[in-house]
Formats: sequence, C-alpha cells, structure tokens
Amino acid sequence: MKIILVGATGTIGSALLPLLADHEVIRASRKGGDISVDITDPASIKAMYDQIGSVDAVISAAGGGAWKPLSELTDADFDLSYRYKLMGQVNLVRFGAGRVAKSFTLTSGVLAQDPMRGSAAISMINAGLEGFARAAALELAPVRVNVVSPPWVSETLAEMGQDPSGGMPAADVARSYLAALNDGSRSGQVLSSTEF
Amino acid sequence: MKIILVGATGTIGSALLPLLADHEVIRASRKGGDISVDITDPASIKAMYDQIGSVDAVISAAGGGAWKPLSELTDADFDLSYRYKLMGQVNLVRFGAGRVAKSFTLTSGVLAQDPMRGSAAISMINAGLEGFARAAALELAPVRVNVVSPPWVSETLAEMGQDPSGGMPAADVARSYLAALNDGSRSGQVLSSTEF
Repeated sequence: MKIILVGATGTIGSALLPLLADHEVIRASRKGGDISVDITDPASIKAMYDQIGSVDAVISAAGGGAWKPLSELTDADFDLSYRYKLMGQVNLVRFGAGRVAKSFTLTSGVLAQDPMRGSAAISMINAGLEGFARAAALELAPVRVNVVSPPWVSETLAEMGQDPSGGMPAADVARSYLAALNDGSRSGQVLSSTEF
Repeated sequence: MKIILVGATGTIGSALLPLLADHEVIRASRKGGDISVDITDPASIKAMYDQIGSVDAVISAAGGGAWKPLSELTDADFDLSYRYKLMGQVNLVRFGAGRVAKSFTLTSGVLAQDPMRGSAAISMINAGLEGFARAAALELAPVRVNVVSPPWVSETLAEMGQDPSGGMPAADVARSYLAALNDGSRSGQVLSSTEF
C-alpha cells in the first residue's frame, strides 16, 4: 500500500516505520521526512494532499497538547491543544476524504479514559478525537477510521526524566497500528495498544 | 443549596427547574432567566460569577454544536461547536473553581458514544467534554464534576419534526441531574440519563 505516515520522525512514528517495510511509506513531519506538514494549519494539510495525490492509507502519530494543572491551563493552552492533536488529526480525515482509499488511523492516548492530574486538556482532546472517529467512520465507509490509544510510552517517560519501566516501549505500541491498518473489519474503533 | 442553572430556559433546563424547588436557583441563560450569560464568551462567564459570588453548585444544560454531514462541516462549524458546548462548559468549571463549593454537573449526550450520520462535530465535543470532566474531577476534589449524557429528548425530536416517541421526555432526562447533584459519591462520572 501507499501510506502517508504523519509524525514519522516522532517516537511512535520512528518505531512504526520498520513495521511498514513492505509498503511505500511517505514520511510526513513538521521537520525532516519526505514532506513537510504542520497539522495545526489546515492549509498545510491541504497542500500535503495536493502534493502527494491519492494514497491507500494515512497513519497519524502526531499532535500534542498542554500538560499542566487545571488551575494553570490558559485559554491559549486549551486552544493550542484543540488545534494541534484534535483538529490537526480531524483535518487529516476531513481533507483526506476522497483521496484516501482504505483507512485512516489516528492517535489518542490512555488519558482519554484514565486521566491524571495535569491531563485536563489532553484528556479532553484525546476523548474528543475518539468521539470524532466513531462518527466519521459511519460516513466515510467503506474507508475505515480508527484510533490507536497508546499507554505512556517508555521513551517518552525517559525524556521526561521518569522511570521508563512504567510505560510500554514504542516498538510494542507500534504493533497496534498494524491491527488498525490491516484488519478490514475494524472501523470506528479505539484500539488500546495494551491489547496487542 | 444555592445553584446556578445554566441553560435554564432551554428544553432540559425548563424541565429541571421544578425538580430543584427546594433550592435557591439562579437561572442563567443567554436570554431571559435571572442573569444573562453567553457561554461562548469567557468574559461573560467570568462576569456571571463576579456578579453572583459563591454558590454550592452549577448545573449546565447549555450549549450546542453543528449537525451536518461530515463533508459539509466547515472549519467554522467545528470551531463554533468547540467554543459553544465544549469550551463553554469547560469554562464554567475553570472559572467557577474556587467559587463553587460542592459540584459541577455538565451535559454531553448519547452521540458521544453512539454516533449517527451528521454527528461528527457533536460526537467530538460531547466525548471531549466527558474526557475533560473525568480529569477535572481529580484536581477539583472534594468539589465534584460530573456529566449527564441524555439520549435524544422527545421535545427536541418534535421540534425537528421527528417522532417524539423515539426520545426520552425532558422531565425524565431531568431526573438524572438530581443524581449528579445529590449523590456525594459521584465524581468524574458520565451519567447516562437512561439509567435513572
């Protein structure tokens, strides 16, 4: 398949690349990769699709949000979180509709359902993305739309100076994306990485 | 208790009012009611709290979103949906923290988990609100934060020219808000109205 991997240079994207060796992968990223895209900017997403043309699948492991105590989250923190991990990925689907033949796979995270102190904005956008995907899958069928929900990733914990053994290695998280990509019976689903 | 009921003049708010007869209720609404508030405007929410001062509880049955086929939803439709039912209610919690002594009860809807064609933006914001509430409850304890998720409301279906028997009467939906208001063990929960 011809696949756009958005967030290809990130922790999960880098771990996913070798698992897609049998496919033609176009690596999209804010910096580096084969094509540059800033998913916070709708025009940048449209330009990416215009440049690439039709593909079989889009996998997004891109986007972030503000991690702060609720009392410190500003209007700008919420808006950035919304525009980045939530609308960034929603727009990959909206603007990819009609150009993507088989499937979209997006990324939420365990905080959608199991929050922690500091996750109010991230829990909101992760859960919102899952709600969107369930609905979009109804309208885009037979094109499939799924969301992978990773737990804390070991490499991310290490970057944060925390014990990586509390997380799942990115290479293991990456396997759950293959289930979303390859299992034609899955659409409108949230795939928890811990189940693969 | 002293309670701010946001959306007091709406379908659910009107049905909820008589069930709160034992309390001192301040009816907040965009038009009518005791105090005017536009929840799409953060400054309006802050002004409402400044005017009212401390209360025991806030109940919100306010906010809407864009109901359209995914292919017709515009950037502006998504942004309005985000600012209205999602951030409007998130901001009731953010700006009410420290002034609300006991509980916040917000409103999502069944489309968060069970979408229909046309619900992509609404499913997104409803699910996002549920994710936010789960997280905010952790940080605001002992103040409680819950979300009531109504099914289709009979009166709303009738307004849309559809068969009201497919929905739940607003008077029945209203009862589920009492569980969120009165049950001190509930926080960070999504209360489906069909269970009450």
